[in-house]
Amino acid sequence: MNLCIVSHAACRIKGKPVGPAPRPLCYNGPMQAEVLAIGSELTSGATVNTNAAYLARRLAALGIPCRRQVAVGDERSELLAALHEGLQRSTLLIVTGGLGPTFDDITMAAIAEATRRPLVYFPAVATAIRRFYTRRHRALQRAALRQAYLPRGGQPLSNALGTAAGLWLPLAHGRVLVALPGVPAEMRAITERHVLPRLKRLASGRAIESRTLRTAGIVELAIEAVLRRLRIPPEVSVGLYPNLRMVDVRLTAATRSRPQAKRSLARLEAPLRRALGVHVYGVDDETIEEAVGRLLVARRRTIAVAESCTGGLVSDRLTNVPGSSRYVRGGVIAYHNDVKRTQLGVSSTLLAKYGAVSAPVARSMAQGVRRLLGSNVGLAITGIAGPTGGTKRKPVGLVYLALADGRRVLSHRCQFFGDRLSIKAQAAQAAIDFLRRHLLRR
Amino acid sequence: MNLCIVSHAACRIKGKPVGPAPRPLCYNGPMQAEVLAIGSELTSGATVNTNAAYLARRLAALGIPCRRQVAVGDERSELLAALHEGLQRSTLLIVTGGLGPTFDDITMAAIAEATRRPLVYFPAVATAIRRFYTRRHRALQRAALRQAYLPRGGQPLSNALGTAAGLWLPLAHGRVLVALPGVPAEMRAITERHVLPRLKRLASGRAIESRTLRTAGIVELAIEAVLRRLRIPPEVSVGLYPNLRMVDVRLTAATRSRPQAKRSLARLEAPLRRALGVHVYGVDDETIEEAVGRLLVARRRTIAVAESCTGGLVSDRLTNVPGSSRYVRGGVIAYHNDVKRTQLGVSSTLLAKYGAVSAPVARSMAQGVRRLLGSNVGLAITGIAGPTGGTKRKPVGLVYLALADGRRVLSHRCQFFGDRLSIKAQAAQAAIDFLRRHLLRR
Repeated sequence: MNLCIVSHAACRIKGKPVGPAPRPLCYNGPMQAEVLAIGSELTSGATVNTNAAYLARRLAALGIPCRRQVAVGDERSELLAALHEGLQRSTLLIVTGGLGPTFDDITMAAIAEATRRPLVYFPAVATAIRRFYTRRHRALQRAALRQAYLPRGGQPLSNALGTAAGLWLPLAHGRVLVALPGVPAEMRAITERHVLPRLKRLASGRAIESRTLRTAGIVELAIEAVLRRLRIPPEVSVGLYPNLRMVDVRLTAATRSRPQAKRSLARLEAPLRRALGVHVYGVDDETIEEAVGRLLVARRRTIAVAESCTGGLVSDRLTNVPGSSRYVRGGVIAYHNDVKRTQLGVSSTLLAKYGAVSAPVARSMAQGVRRLLGSNVGLAITGIAGPTGGTKRKPVGLVYLALADGRRVLSHRCQFFGDRLSIKAQAAQAAIDFLRRHLLRR
Repeated sequence: MNLCIVSHAACRIKGKPVGPAPRPLCYNGPMQAEVLAIGSELTSGATVNTNAAYLARRLAALGIPCRRQVAVGDERSELLAALHEGLQRSTLLIVTGGLGPTFDDITMAAIAEATRRPLVYFPAVATAIRRFYTRRHRALQRAALRQAYLPRGGQPLSNALGTAAGLWLPLAHGRVLVALPGVPAEMRAITERHVLPRLKRLASGRAIESRTLRTAGIVELAIEAVLRRLRIPPEVSVGLYPNLRMVDVRLTAATRSRPQAKRSLARLEAPLRRALGVHVYGVDDETIEEAVGRLLVARRRTIAVAESCTGGLVSDRLTNVPGSSRYVRGGVIAYHNDVKRTQLGVSSTLLAKYGAVSAPVARSMAQGVRRLLGSNVGLAITGIAGPTGGTKRKPVGLVYLALADGRRVLSHRCQFFGDRLSIKAQAAQAAIDFLRRHLLRR
């Protein structure tokens, strides 16, 4: 290991630096974030804390490293201890959860106590709560008005999706405490609309710009090799974030002015994009499903999917994109071989000769689903998700992908490792990327 | 709010107790757990920390509350601080991640430093690592042998899925530190095989037994009303864990002997099951997909699914169950109305008269997919996932479910709220529960 990539979001340097001397661990001044999630549903394990990851990603895009994520239950003394520690450690403490109207929602009271401020009534918040109930033709729950009390000195952050307002609370020494509802959709909406713009303004004097190149089909080490060949300007840091056969490459520039930061980013982004080429499927928040959708719309192509081992996961992902009904015709889940034969027209001879998990059957499935559902492109996946069904010649994790577009039929063999769900997820990911690369080639 | 349910996993009491006096917050003696996850992929938001939720659930089943979950990056001083704090606060500290062979995997070294023990070479671990490489016909990476060094006094926990051994490290005053790999499959395997049995033994003198009744289609408040009518023995605590239209009811008995704990549980479980009736879909770790699979196998029925708005998610979930190929024939994703007509035989008249999102179309889809794929049961979902496509009469979130079994056709109207992904998830969940209830009725 001999890299110069600064994974700045976590303030670590991977291995020994080469090239330019390592920059200070947290180059963007004193702002250091911590996310504190509150709720016994988290500490009991009933709910997975997805909010923390979302917030960390959004903060990193502003150049604000999230040093720590903490989750505690709704118990007052635990919560107070976590608030005190978080405020000592970090300059930005983002608290999620416990803003509801019920007895065990004690976050605002605990923040008031930890910051030694009284809770005061915010008439504008009360009006918004009343309006929320009226619009839904529901009677106002008296308890809901508890949510109109926020710590003195705080700014309420309006919540378009619910009754719990967020809180922006400036504290001494430039520190800020932000409180957000725990419901992910509400938390995200308030973050995007109110918190991120305020944080951008806070970084005054310094302009932070960031850009994420999202890649698929190239491993972290290969991207590191590419980066080592490029000149990385000293004001730009690069972080690599691998996840399920995809790697996000995030470039963050911190300079005195926004135009300068944009220029610095562009100076690195252009050669990096050239070097990564077709592996880059999108930028910033674009998912690979969205990228594929964009390509299908641009090329006026429709798609139909025939799935065996992925069992519907590819179609599920493609249809997660709003507006996907414009290009997704539909799909066939051909779990049983009968369905492969009768619906997709895979011949019994082919099934007997090569087996259901084979390139010829995958190709026939892709052609079949294209014909059957009248799409321009047919995509097919067949494989062995396990845990049983594997043999020495065809082990668990063997997956064939195929694609038919009326002119030709392509297929691709993959070998994945892991448990059933992991193999399904990797196969779906590979199939979507296979489709994307095909669409790019046209 | 006037409840007597002790949500013990987080040591909180919801509202004011009625009936028996509240038991001590942590009735099971001094063991208090904390989970510390290590990895910049977590603090940067690239990866969601699912390990913490899993561990909290498994600990709660042993009556061990998890008070806090923390995530920090792989930076040495952060990690040391988090280790020190965790060891002070908790009697059981479970650390996940950072056990790999590379330079930035520093967890074992940090544990050694925090507990003032040297790292020593464990030949048995080295042998296991060598065997791992040999079995995969791969050359041993020298760096992999770094993983054979563990803090003195620790017990290695063998890892059947990888090279990183876990660690069980008994400390002064009965405290225990456990270190596990961050890869979820490896972490889970070591937990189930080595950690949970050891923790059970530690709770000597006290026998802890727990049982989770998993419910669907009944809200938390209704379950609380049921519990209030039952006599809950003082040695049993009850926790409710709601998640996506399902609520887990966990009963935990702590007594002097295992038979006594089992009797205590049974005394509450029997009347509770009677009261909750068909809402209970399974116990302990059984998922609702598995419950449906079990029912389909028992009744020798096969299933085919026609999905519109869920786009494959129902089939994806049903096929997550190992062995589901025995009863899942396949499915049709009828995203475009053409597919509903040509494949599922939904008549143009029906589509024109009622629209694609309607009970008659859902019923026709269920009959169509059953006939088309030759299954015993056909399940259909059609609805508006949004964000666009809603009208005043048919708003976003409106979903029709239907089921055909050759004798009759049932349908069900639902109205969900939330964003596109949330509506898809709720609709899929409701469809699977609809199928389950139908199978129970036969």
